[in-house]
Amino acid sequence: MPAVTLAELSEYLRANGFENRVDGDESITVNAVNALDEARPGELTFLTNPKYRDMATRTRASALIVGHKLAVETPAATVVCDDAYAALTMSIVKIHGYRVHPDWGVSPRAIVAETARIGANADIGPGVTIGEHAVIGDNATIYPGCYVADHAVLGNDVVLFPNVVVYDRCRLGNRVTIHAGTVVGEDGLGYAPLNGKWAKIPQVGAVEIGDDVEIGAACTIDRATVGMTRIASGTKFSNLIAIGHGAKVGEDCLFVAQVGLAGSVTVGRHVTIAGQAGVVGHISIGDNATVGAQSGVTESVEPGETVLGAPARPIDETKRHFALIKRLPELRQRIKDLEAEVRSLRDLIDRDARTRP
Amino acid sequence: MPAVTLAELSEYLRANGFENRVDGDESITVNAVNALDEARPGELTFLTNPKYRDMATRTRASALIVGHKLAVETPAATVVCDDAYAALTMSIVKIHGYRVHPDWGVSPRAIVAETARIGANADIGPGVTIGEHAVIGDNATIYPGCYVADHAVLGNDVVLFPNVVVYDRCRLGNRVTIHAGTVVGEDGLGYAPLNGKWAKIPQVGAVEIGDDVEIGAACTIDRATVGMTRIASGTKFSNLIAIGHGAKVGEDCLFVAQVGLAGSVTVGRHVTIAGQAGVVGHISIGDNATVGAQSGVTESVEPGETVLGAPARPIDETKRHFALIKRLPELRQRIKDLEAEVRSLRDLIDRDARTRP
Amino acid sequence: MPAVTLAELSEYLRANGFENRVDGDESITVNAVNALDEARPGELTFLTNPKYRDMATRTRASALIVGHKLAVETPAATVVCDDAYAALTMSIVKIHGYRVHPDWGVSPRAIVAETARIGANADIGPGVTIGEHAVIGDNATIYPGCYVADHAVLGNDVVLFPNVVVYDRCRLGNRVTIHAGTVVGEDGLGYAPLNGKWAKIPQVGAVEIGDDVEIGAACTIDRATVGMTRIASGTKFSNLIAIGHGAKVGEDCLFVAQVGLAGSVTVGRHVTIAGQAGVVGHISIGDNATVGAQSGVTESVEPGETVLGAPARPIDETKRHFALIKRLPELRQRIKDLEAEVRSLRDLIDRDARTRP
Repeated sequence: MPAVTLAELSEYLRANGFENRVDGDESITVNAVNALDEARPGELTFLTNPKYRDMATRTRASALIVGHKLAVETPAATVVCDDAYAALTMSIVKIHGYRVHPDWGVSPRAIVAETARIGANADIGPGVTIGEHAVIGDNATIYPGCYVADHAVLGNDVVLFPNVVVYDRCRLGNRVTIHAGTVVGEDGLGYAPLNGKWAKIPQVGAVEIGDDVEIGAACTIDRATVGMTRIASGTKFSNLIAIGHGAKVGEDCLFVAQVGLAGSVTVGRHVTIAGQAGVVGHISIGDNATVGAQSGVTESVEPGETVLGAPARPIDETKRHFALIKRLPELRQRIKDLEAEVRSLRDLIDRDARTRP
Repeated sequence: MPAVTLAELSEYLRANGFENRVDGDESITVNAVNALDEARPGELTFLTNPKYRDMATRTRASALIVGHKLAVETPAATVVCDDAYAALTMSIVKIHGYRVHPDWGVSPRAIVAETARIGANADIGPGVTIGEHAVIGDNATIYPGCYVADHAVLGNDVVLFPNVVVYDRCRLGNRVTIHAGTVVGEDGLGYAPLNGKWAKIPQVGAVEIGDDVEIGAACTIDRATVGMTRIASGTKFSNLIAIGHGAKVGEDCLFVAQVGLAGSVTVGRHVTIAGQAGVVGHISIGDNATVGAQSGVTESVEPGETVLGAPARPIDETKRHFALIKRLPELRQRIKDLEAEVRSLRDLIDRDARTRP
Repeated sequence: MPAVTLAELSEYLRANGFENRVDGDESITVNAVNALDEARPGELTFLTNPKYRDMATRTRASALIVGHKLAVETPAATVVCDDAYAALTMSIVKIHGYRVHPDWGVSPRAIVAETARIGANADIGPGVTIGEHAVIGDNATIYPGCYVADHAVLGNDVVLFPNVVVYDRCRLGNRVTIHAGTVVGEDGLGYAPLNGKWAKIPQVGAVEIGDDVEIGAACTIDRATVGMTRIASGTKFSNLIAIGHGAKVGEDCLFVAQVGLAGSVTVGRHVTIAGQAGVVGHISIGDNATVGAQSGVTESVEPGETVLGAPARPIDETKRHFALIKRLPELRQRIKDLEAEVRSLRDLIDRDARTRP
């Protein structure tokens, strides 16, 4: 890792549009970015969450990035900026850069069909299988153990980490990255009931993934029964996500781990779905909507709306429900008290009636 | 794909027991089945969900399959049948057929133990490992990267997609299909507490899967601690499903993605478990029962029952609970109103008592 | 499997600290441990859950282990002990032993970088890739299809089942076992918003796993953005578990299938998290805490506490909520009754006032 001085780092951030100032010795050098509690002397750390302010007072890091709105006491020199999170990202890029992939060329231990087309400078690792008529773009990196089936098409600069499987006829755009063990294009759960048995419906659709999509590890993206399952450009998935057949996911979405979409769901642009949430089939989620963790979405969600809960409702409504559920013992007591009070009023009135002349 | 005329398609459906009629030009040919909104001229589409009726008026497909109960306006010729879903299935089979697998024979790049028995016409892809004393049935297709451990037994016509792992001594019936990345027979979470540590209990059971079972991608099916974890014939799983050690799943069940069964659960025949539902250990779910999405099943379920919610209850009960939770703000207000009203009655009575002579 | 007499088994258990007595013929031999309903003559079974007492009366097993507190009627000879579960574990170890792994040496079909260091007696299966500067400890077993990336370090006696992927610079302690298809060290969901797009933050941290950790199949453990994601010694995971970037899991924890931890969660020692539970980011769970199945933990949990529900609350509170939700129809009826009663009281009082002179 190249060491940089705080003066150099500050200048680099400014050149990238992040105004900042250094409080402390600008000649200090840092050669790695690390967490507040793990950083050692010679490293750069950061404070973006006020919750960890205490740790900043004890950090052993030589320097610390912090937003100018966050007052901080720390033995480290500080780089104070408007947007500490973005500055952190740039600093990691500057000091560490992105992962450099191994350099296999087309490994003699890969199996590449004669009819496949492999782009310039593509790296195809040992133990990879590339099927008939498959197309691999320029500068692609296919790690060992991946399987790219017949007629699959991968764009330029695609990275498949080890043991990724792309079924037949699926298409990936440029700069798509897929982490280890993910499966794209397996058959969905498509069966027709036939005399008490399940008759398989051939799943003749495929999956189409746009540009700049990144998919985590061990996800499963069903091919469509007919037509296409689609993941649009710029969308990012975490791990263990299940996408049902024929679902369409818009651009620049963010799906957290263990999310599940049933078949034929339509998700708009820039939608966030938090961890373990599920969406039933054949509904739609509007642009810029947010689905809270573990939600069970059973009805379509309007653009811009934030929903939570199972069944999912607008977040304020669900929070009110959660609060009232917590108060159920009290509400029940109040009902009991009312019943007692009403009985006593009834007694009073009855007695009064009886004693009246 | 072979092109067929609507006359031929109609005749074929009739021959397979699906009565139908063509409204429009019977000589039109179609060469693919596609979704309403993606179909092009020369393709066949379908309307099975009234929700998409609007799309039918705008489809570019040349022909459309529809149930005779669903009135539809469409520029396409229509094939009108009793059971549109079944007719669609048959049409996909007729026009597209089922996936044809690559033809590896026994790849010289596969590792096959000398004591293994490989059936006639089996295809064992490159990078496959077949362990000692393993048995692979006739016409099996084992894709690259699969691992079939020692003493595992696979029936005839089994298909393992890439990177499937079958642990030692597990048994798969005939015509079992397993999608990429699924693991059969890993050790379950079996530990005995020993001085504050977890002592591993050897998991000496295995997994037995019946005939005609299809399992999705990235599922995990624990071997039993002792005895067998069982998945009976005809059952179909979607993706990312976790089956605990010693569970028994009956025939012709349907499990949607991300379902989890804890250990020693017994599931009857023809049970449907919807997405992300979980079942606690050592309980049973009766034949023909249905478990709703995201349910948490904590008590045994009667045959034929439909349960929903966490903890799961009969669906009508849970729906009533959901409806009442939505009405909690109103119920709370009614309690408040009652309290005010009761106070005012009390005041009236008290005043009345005081003013009475 | 070696056959043992009940006399030998009893003696062996006693030698390992488990007091016991044999009721029945001590010369009976058993050669396998099996489930109550699956055991055959010549096999040993067990009764640890009173729920299955009925099965004990019908078992075909020759012998049965049972706790001395559990009265049992059975045709089998019985081995009666204080701690039947521990005795069962010991008996399985005695009769079956632990899995014996195949013996590949360093397979000529593995790809091992020249700069990698492979320990004594390590088995590296065919189709394994070991990256530059990676270290594999003594007696390690790396099954086919595994990928151990550059600079990864694995301790002694590590077992990676087939198709496990360990990303660059991740570190595994001694005696770590990882089941098939699990991924350690993939990038987490780390993106900074930039003009409506998601800009990737290089994930330059890694994962560190302690000694004696066992991880199930198809789990995904994110590398930290910076610093380390940590799984401490003795912890055991089931399958399909997602661990977010920068999470720290303490010693001797037990995580059931499909659990998800978001990023930067801190989990103490000896914590149990039941199936499908999720934990939001940046909170902590204290030592010896327990999280119930499907819980959604949104606030830190105190040491020793047991929480349940979504949002998770102390288990007694959640159980009270569950009970009251079931009673909501009744509570609503009581409110209705109160309203009617109060109306009638109001009428009485009004009438009384009007009729008063």
